[in-house]
Amino acid sequence: MSCVAFVLTSICASRCRAYKEAQKYCKANLAATTKESNFTVIPEQSEWKLTPGAKYVHICANETIQGVEFKHDPTIDGCLIADMSSNFCSKPVDVSKYGIIYAGAQKNVGPAGVTIVIIREDLIGHARPDTPVMLDYQIMAENDSLYNTPPCWSIYMCGLVFKKLLSMGGLSEVEKHNKAKAGILYDAIQASNGYFKSPVAENVRSAMNVPFTMDTPELEKEFLGLCQKNGLIQLKGHRSVGGMRASIYNAMPVSGVERLAQLMKEFQASH
Amino acid sequence: MSCVAFVLTSICASRCRAYKEAQKYCKANLAATTKESNFTVIPEQSEWKLTPGAKYVHICANETIQGVEFKHDPTIDGCLIADMSSNFCSKPVDVSKYGIIYAGAQKNVGPAGVTIVIIREDLIGHARPDTPVMLDYQIMAENDSLYNTPPCWSIYMCGLVFKKLLSMGGLSEVEKHNKAKAGILYDAIQASNGYFKSPVAENVRSAMNVPFTMDTPELEKEFLGLCQKNGLIQLKGHRSVGGMRASIYNAMPVSGVERLAQLMKEFQASH
Repeated sequence: MSCVAFVLTSICASRCRAYKEAQKYCKANLAATTKESNFTVIPEQSEWKLTPGAKYVHICANETIQGVEFKHDPTIDGCLIADMSSNFCSKPVDVSKYGIIYAGAQKNVGPAGVTIVIIREDLIGHARPDTPVMLDYQIMAENDSLYNTPPCWSIYMCGLVFKKLLSMGGLSEVEKHNKAKAGILYDAIQASNGYFKSPVAENVRSAMNVPFTMDTPELEKEFLGLCQKNGLIQLKGHRSVGGMRASIYNAMPVSGVERLAQLMKEFQASH
Repeated sequence: MSCVAFVLTSICASRCRAYKEAQKYCKANLAATTKESNFTVIPEQSEWKLTPGAKYVHICANETIQGVEFKHDPTIDGCLIADMSSNFCSKPVDVSKYGIIYAGAQKNVGPAGVTIVIIREDLIGHARPDTPVMLDYQIMAENDSLYNTPPCWSIYMCGLVFKKLLSMGGLSEVEKHNKAKAGILYDAIQASNGYFKSPVAENVRSAMNVPFTMDTPELEKEFLGLCQKNGLIQLKGHRSVGGMRASIYNAMPVSGVERLAQLMKEFQASH
């Protein structure tokens, strides 16, 4: 039976799902997990317990719930597969280091309903004979992704976003933009001297999802109310971790992030 | 090994695909095919060679390429499964006669990228253990179709179309509307006294897709050019059958159909 390996960086259901799903088809090993640190770090590559001969190693490049993000493309001997759903096109990526990159479009590049797959050519054509046709990359490749009627409008919208990202100067510029946005929030947390806290290790703080907490659930609730009143919504942290979470994907303007930082400052000053 | 049965009404790749796909997972029998008549009829139910004990019988309720359509919901002892992609919500359907109805939204109810499934509750929960999670109806049902991020915009658009169809008076009225539209074209073909021809048996002519032919490919090309000049596009028949094909789904207004019938008349008069 084939082996595959997973680096788990999240309690997030969707990440565990890739691991659980793999168990249907092969032996899935846990190469690393940061459960002990409550998923606030990313395991050093030197600590990964890779299985010799494993068909692939799977990572989640950015974890939306905990707000941890791989800051470098890992280099491994085998085939690296990354779920980049939540940081795709937020920064440059060395595609050559990956066997497969897959990403739901809905965070950074378009409407929900499109998934983009970048696959190394030699990995195409090895599907199990009982693979459903819609999940067979060979069929997709041979038919220019038009085997079925494609979600035309959603693809068109992604195209407009790609044009926009190119007009910004490409992904290097997009990355600067995103780093600046995230920096404003992490700086605001830092400047609060512990009034607001980031649970995440500094070297892996996500540029896409910024979770932060306060001393009590009551304060957090009050702060979320203030945000809501000021038009800043969807800031409640995922139910599995609580607190707040600012998701600041490509489409979030600097002004929105600045407004949140300002509210953090005002709230602290008034308490 | 489980058996299933197919009633094939089409040379269309997508219809054969359901048959081919089933062969990956079970023994798929051909209960009936109208290949001999070049798929211009629908086989009488009395002629279906159903396999006793078959898990399901699969039909395609409307065939877009040949333009044949089931005019009544079949009644069978076992589980009937219908691909209604191309006539879903074009007319009332007795849902109780079907085990599963599935339909890509893109013909009659919304943008490409949504598939609607109506499944009898007792059929849920029997997936093979190695069924990919995204194809497991039980997971979809348990999660109110929100297991993954759904294609929100496309679903929203379908909702607007449903409201529109209801405002028209519901599917009985929609059916009258569609029958009237199709009637205009079939009458125009009839009135041409053989100048334009419908290859399809009268009792199963589709209200959604109206294929028609002329005596020579040269005439057809000239007629298509005239249509194009008059803003009537996408009228070329599928490459596998040639000729012309008017797809007149819910969104096609009566005026578009009337314009086509008028052009047919004018073209004939000028030749």
